[in-house]
Amino acid sequence: MDWQNVLAARNGRMKASEIRELLKLLDQPDIISFAGGIPDPALFPTETFRDAMSAALTGPAAGAALQYSVSEGYLPLREWIAGQMGQIGIPCSADDVLITSGSQQALDYLGKLMLDPGDTALVTWPAYMGALGAFNAYEPRYDRLDPKGNRPGSDIAQAARAGGGRVKFAYLSADFANPTGETLDRSGREALLDLAEELDIAVIEDAAYQALRYDGAAIPPILALELARKGDLQQCRTIYSGSFSKVLSPGLRVGWVVAARPVIQQLVLMKQAADLHSPTLNQIATNHVARAIFDDHVAMLRTTYAARRDAMLSALRRYMSEGVRFTKPEGGMFVWLTLPTGMDGADLLAQSLKTEKVAFVPGRAFFADGSNGNTLRLSFSCAGESMIEEGMKRLGRLIRADQSYSTSVSVSESDAMVQ
Amino acid sequence: MDWQNVLAARNGRMKASEIRELLKLLDQPDIISFAGGIPDPALFPTETFRDAMSAALTGPAAGAALQYSVSEGYLPLREWIAGQMGQIGIPCSADDVLITSGSQQALDYLGKLMLDPGDTALVTWPAYMGALGAFNAYEPRYDRLDPKGNRPGSDIAQAARAGGGRVKFAYLSADFANPTGETLDRSGREALLDLAEELDIAVIEDAAYQALRYDGAAIPPILALELARKGDLQQCRTIYSGSFSKVLSPGLRVGWVVAARPVIQQLVLMKQAADLHSPTLNQIATNHVARAIFDDHVAMLRTTYAARRDAMLSALRRYMSEGVRFTKPEGGMFVWLTLPTGMDGADLLAQSLKTEKVAFVPGRAFFADGSNGNTLRLSFSCAGESMIEEGMKRLGRLIRADQSYSTSVSVSESDAMVQ
Repeated sequence: MDWQNVLAARNGRMKASEIRELLKLLDQPDIISFAGGIPDPALFPTETFRDAMSAALTGPAAGAALQYSVSEGYLPLREWIAGQMGQIGIPCSADDVLITSGSQQALDYLGKLMLDPGDTALVTWPAYMGALGAFNAYEPRYDRLDPKGNRPGSDIAQAARAGGGRVKFAYLSADFANPTGETLDRSGREALLDLAEELDIAVIEDAAYQALRYDGAAIPPILALELARKGDLQQCRTIYSGSFSKVLSPGLRVGWVVAARPVIQQLVLMKQAADLHSPTLNQIATNHVARAIFDDHVAMLRTTYAARRDAMLSALRRYMSEGVRFTKPEGGMFVWLTLPTGMDGADLLAQSLKTEKVAFVPGRAFFADGSNGNTLRLSFSCAGESMIEEGMKRLGRLIRADQSYSTSVSVSESDAMVQ
Repeated sequence: MDWQNVLAARNGRMKASEIRELLKLLDQPDIISFAGGIPDPALFPTETFRDAMSAALTGPAAGAALQYSVSEGYLPLREWIAGQMGQIGIPCSADDVLITSGSQQALDYLGKLMLDPGDTALVTWPAYMGALGAFNAYEPRYDRLDPKGNRPGSDIAQAARAGGGRVKFAYLSADFANPTGETLDRSGREALLDLAEELDIAVIEDAAYQALRYDGAAIPPILALELARKGDLQQCRTIYSGSFSKVLSPGLRVGWVVAARPVIQQLVLMKQAADLHSPTLNQIATNHVARAIFDDHVAMLRTTYAARRDAMLSALRRYMSEGVRFTKPEGGMFVWLTLPTGMDGADLLAQSLKTEKVAFVPGRAFFADGSNGNTLRLSFSCAGESMIEEGMKRLGRLIRADQSYSTSVSVSESDAMVQ
């Protein structure tokens, strides 16, 4: 059978990523990896989850923990989330919360909710590559979101019309973004809201890393700033996507969306049709664990990850050659490197697998237009401090070798051409 | 904000079902319900799951059980499933298996894989309403699948072209279908494969109830019959969708797809972009429980559900008036009633909530064209035998009352018109 005869057009946009294929090679034991954007499993509250699962599966309510449940999500968990949202400037009720199977599912659903083929999604340059992957299924075009840039909204709208659709939303991670680790300041958030009003579009605020601030003053979430302007969540255009993946457990796949009622109601219908509901037991256990230990656990994570970030920034200062720039994140899991122009992160990784055995994610895949190949993402979340020291030493050596190699290759290629 | 300005066209097809809204009323304690198509939670192997979860969250592998995992699914579980598939005539390997978050997610992904707006999906009349809901998001038209009908494939293809697309797949549940409980016999399955070859389309075999046969000889799955013709899974056009929901636990959301490699590979990419993976711990625990108790547990379910089916069929024979027809399922969870022409299942339910307090699902929502309102679905899976007896007694009384009420209403409406 020739499957091309029955595949939908959207499959043309869902291709295997070369980067992901390359990353499969990085599980080798002799590699020091800063590639995975994942929390350290040694820090998971496994015993608390075990106790919560056991309790949920004991007694008269045990059957309900393994039974179908409502698409909106487990009410006590939605209530706890609503309480947490209130603490960060977003007072809301359980009815404003939808449970999703991780924030990745929220991104898929939000693309499905808003994107017709040819519509425009505004994304940061770079953006979380998983968001681009989720949106791609709905065949958008991308335009660059730069809240502090001075490009007028009318130009963006005009380009979208020329592209055959309308701007539907701006997507960004405002706190400790994947991949840069950077944070959008308050004036940038306000400028983004102004742009969203001008274009009459939604804002998707991906808050996956928001709880992991290590220093500096917290900036209100975009949705909190919009709520302060409008006074009513039901009038807001910002859709907040949260996740337990980075703070409790990613493997249980529990995240949430907070938004105005028309969005929540449509997402509930979508979820009912797409997977009925997120697993019941996972929501019950997450509710139990969050209520028991959330604040203390997050405090422990902050201390641990902050030390790793410090170790990485310190080592980068010592080992990187001139011409290498890197971000200084106040939270999250990532440092973003910009290599000298002309160098390529993917080439560097291929070289590294042969010589220095240090792994990272080349930056190009985070750009909707595949530009900026001279970048790479480092994650400090899963590496101990001595491993970070050794890894940055190797990376510095690799980049210096590549700089001289690039020079020698250019020379010999020139030689080849004249011969 | 007017959300209509940013919603995708597909939302027009994702509407709240009146039936689902009505069913929310049926949780009242004084209602005897045959509405939910759900397994009896009293029969869940809760202790075995509790032990499996505890084991997975103890020791050095505990962190991995809460960590991200591969989109394909947990390898030992895929291996166990491949072994089970071999026992029903579908020898395959773990590489031919994708884990999904229940078979509902498989239906969503298969719609996403194949349907462009205006394409045709062939579905049975009636079909599982959740399949129609999943496919609707991809804006198909529907045509009637009747493997034993004598409508030529060329007519179906012509109608699809006239509808602005192509026939992409036939979807059906061949064993103990939701909602009818009926089974497609072997010659019907072979005829379906002939039609699929003629139209060059995929077949989606929804096998959610396949393990729950209470009597009669098992018929090979459609994929097994196609494999017998072709000798190689990679040449087959049938996509098999299985689920643990009806035999172990629905709340953990674990199902699977077996298909040719191009389908599995594309679905893996789709899953990676849509929710990364199904929850890790759920897959580990399901693998443990399936290996420990699957055959014994299914044998227990068969005995229990068979007795309830027998009780329902016996009561239906005694309490239904002439003119009411019902199916005699060899397995699954459902009996399908056809009321005398002119009666309406939804009206009957509304009446029942006032008087007899017995609940069921009106049949119209299972028909892609909203026809056949004089039908309803009864589920016997969650009701004890005395409750079934009482419920069928009330239902018979309700239908008889409706028959005489309908007559009297027609008369008084006629009276009203002449006045």
